[in-house]
Amino acid sequence: MSDQLERLNRLPLRDNLRGLEPYGAPQLHVPVLLNVNENTHPLPDSVHKAIAAAVEAAATGLNRYPDREFTQLRQALARYLGHGLTEENVWAANGSNEVLQQILQAFGGPGRRLLSFPPTYSMYPLLASGTDTEYVTGARSSDFSLTAEAAARAVRESAANIVILCSPNNPTGTALGLDVVEAVYEAGAEYNTMVIVDEAYAEFAHTGTPSALELLQGRERLIVSRTMSKAFALAGARVGYLAAAPEVTDALRLVRLPYHLSAITQATAVAALDHADALLANVEDIKGQRDRIVSELTDMGLRPAPSDSNFVFFGGVSNPHAVWQGLLDAGVLIRDVGIPGHLRVTAGTEAETTAFLNRLRELV
Amino acid sequence: MSDQLERLNRLPLRDNLRGLEPYGAPQLHVPVLLNVNENTHPLPDSVHKAIAAAVEAAATGLNRYPDREFTQLRQALARYLGHGLTEENVWAANGSNEVLQQILQAFGGPGRRLLSFPPTYSMYPLLASGTDTEYVTGARSSDFSLTAEAAARAVRESAANIVILCSPNNPTGTALGLDVVEAVYEAGAEYNTMVIVDEAYAEFAHTGTPSALELLQGRERLIVSRTMSKAFALAGARVGYLAAAPEVTDALRLVRLPYHLSAITQATAVAALDHADALLANVEDIKGQRDRIVSELTDMGLRPAPSDSNFVFFGGVSNPHAVWQGLLDAGVLIRDVGIPGHLRVTAGTEAETTAFLNRLRELV
Repeated sequence: MSDQLERLNRLPLRDNLRGLEPYGAPQLHVPVLLNVNENTHPLPDSVHKAIAAAVEAAATGLNRYPDREFTQLRQALARYLGHGLTEENVWAANGSNEVLQQILQAFGGPGRRLLSFPPTYSMYPLLASGTDTEYVTGARSSDFSLTAEAAARAVRESAANIVILCSPNNPTGTALGLDVVEAVYEAGAEYNTMVIVDEAYAEFAHTGTPSALELLQGRERLIVSRTMSKAFALAGARVGYLAAAPEVTDALRLVRLPYHLSAITQATAVAALDHADALLANVEDIKGQRDRIVSELTDMGLRPAPSDSNFVFFGGVSNPHAVWQGLLDAGVLIRDVGIPGHLRVTAGTEAETTAFLNRLRELV
Repeated sequence: MSDQLERLNRLPLRDNLRGLEPYGAPQLHVPVLLNVNENTHPLPDSVHKAIAAAVEAAATGLNRYPDREFTQLRQALARYLGHGLTEENVWAANGSNEVLQQILQAFGGPGRRLLSFPPTYSMYPLLASGTDTEYVTGARSSDFSLTAEAAARAVRESAANIVILCSPNNPTGTALGLDVVEAVYEAGAEYNTMVIVDEAYAEFAHTGTPSALELLQGRERLIVSRTMSKAFALAGARVGYLAAAPEVTDALRLVRLPYHLSAITQATAVAALDHADALLANVEDIKGQRDRIVSELTDMGLRPAPSDSNFVFFGGVSNPHAVWQGLLDAGVLIRDVGIPGHLRVTAGTEAETTAFLNRLRELV
């Protein structure tokens, strides 16, 4: 044990944290970074300028606390989402992780259970642990798909207080049908279960894939969470948000830290939303590279999962760690998500995708 | 009960949140805002320009996740704090509320107790509740002072896992002697108690008032928390931070949400710290106004507490609500902190302070 770890263990750390390592993918500096599902396209110049100007204006009043209600941002997000939503339906925080943490602070906690369906976003169990919510899991099929029937059964068997459905799912990339969301919501009626659909990657779904936003009307236990980190290319700005019934946002007001969104974050996000068209113009390009990866991996004899996201999860890799290392040696960083025989790669620009595919072809 | 509250109560809200109102002072728009202890001096032009330039540069890489370790910011904060501290000793988050929440997530939680000494910062019980930590209180003297003996006795009687000492204390304004911190730390040895000294207002203390930073060396259970919201005039940027032993920051890495500090927040704070001298130039002016308020209130027959902060807490007000309302009618907003016979006012610019004093003189 290192000296520092020994010193840490002398502190009165909570029992559920003992022996843990901090969460996070390695932050390595290599030419082609395709490991954390970022949008690898830099901001368009017009958006960059608009954000800089908005922040410069906001900085004038930086000595004052920000608008605790971030009303302008909620209005802009509601306009973007459409579906008849207004600012009363919208909430935001510093990344969708904070949005989810606030939901667990409001509806989870000691004696309550969060259900999800691994393999899925690896922060869910950590968020559960951080809020003393029990984390329970339901099973997927062997191809990682999830049927309405299996999902509803897991809700009934666990009597979960909260369910998170990740759609498109991370790390597998596939979107759920709305029948799954509806079945989970109905199964949860008996337990007053809050149902979260995490749509962080929704903008990358194939044309015609419906969003759970369509189901919000009349379902007060349903929450659709989103992020500006992916399609909006704003991972560095840390803006996650959600749409739900107004009483859900009222509940979150009881647990949010006052003034949790800085004036600068609010200004940045509003400026970006004002330029949504320019920002989202790269989404089609990314979807094209994503489909190209799926097609070329199939040609290589690998087994990519259907992807509605900006990344591809693929099986049939006999030695994932060796392939991961071989790519890294060539300056291409992808993600080993710890699932035997599988790896995950972000769809980058055309050049980045080509670099990945060319090297991978040599390795498999 | 309003319709919306009724709908909220149908949701599976946690029991300890039922019936609560969201925290926060009223956000009213009046000419003279002296209610939330902001620094009412706008940013100097040079700092405003530096922040705008830093954010414009950071926005170039906004499509990427920020530095999860915010190393440059930790280095800049360590340089500012001095006392031989390095980036290994420093941690930061979105406001000192988030810093404190992370400390409670690491060291508090179910079955653990947080001790503080009311009247004190009203977020402490809320942060305890939000992390399922039991909140227990120790008594102050009738003049709101706190002796080393009384504080140490409260630690022993409560066997607290965490103690927060607010110094200078909010809302009373008075700094604690380091003997109180030392006594609490020693009393806590038996219970492995974490001791937090919340020094949000430290820069406004009278010359010669020592900081608990002086005690950090060799005390691995001691944490000194600070903020850029007050002396640095950056309430809108949401940057709180702390100094402690390196193993404390390691513990916080286990509970922080990954990438919790945006690239823009990091750039803003680093730019402000690069211009610390210009930003802190207004501190002496604010201290002068603070001392003027204490002196003039005494002349009016009121009883201001000794203040080491940028605000003054004063007793001897026969009808606090009427005085609060009378000031508001004249466009001056101060804070009724709910303590009988008392009010709290922020020291503003000379003109703001004059507006407050002139109106108050008519009311008492």
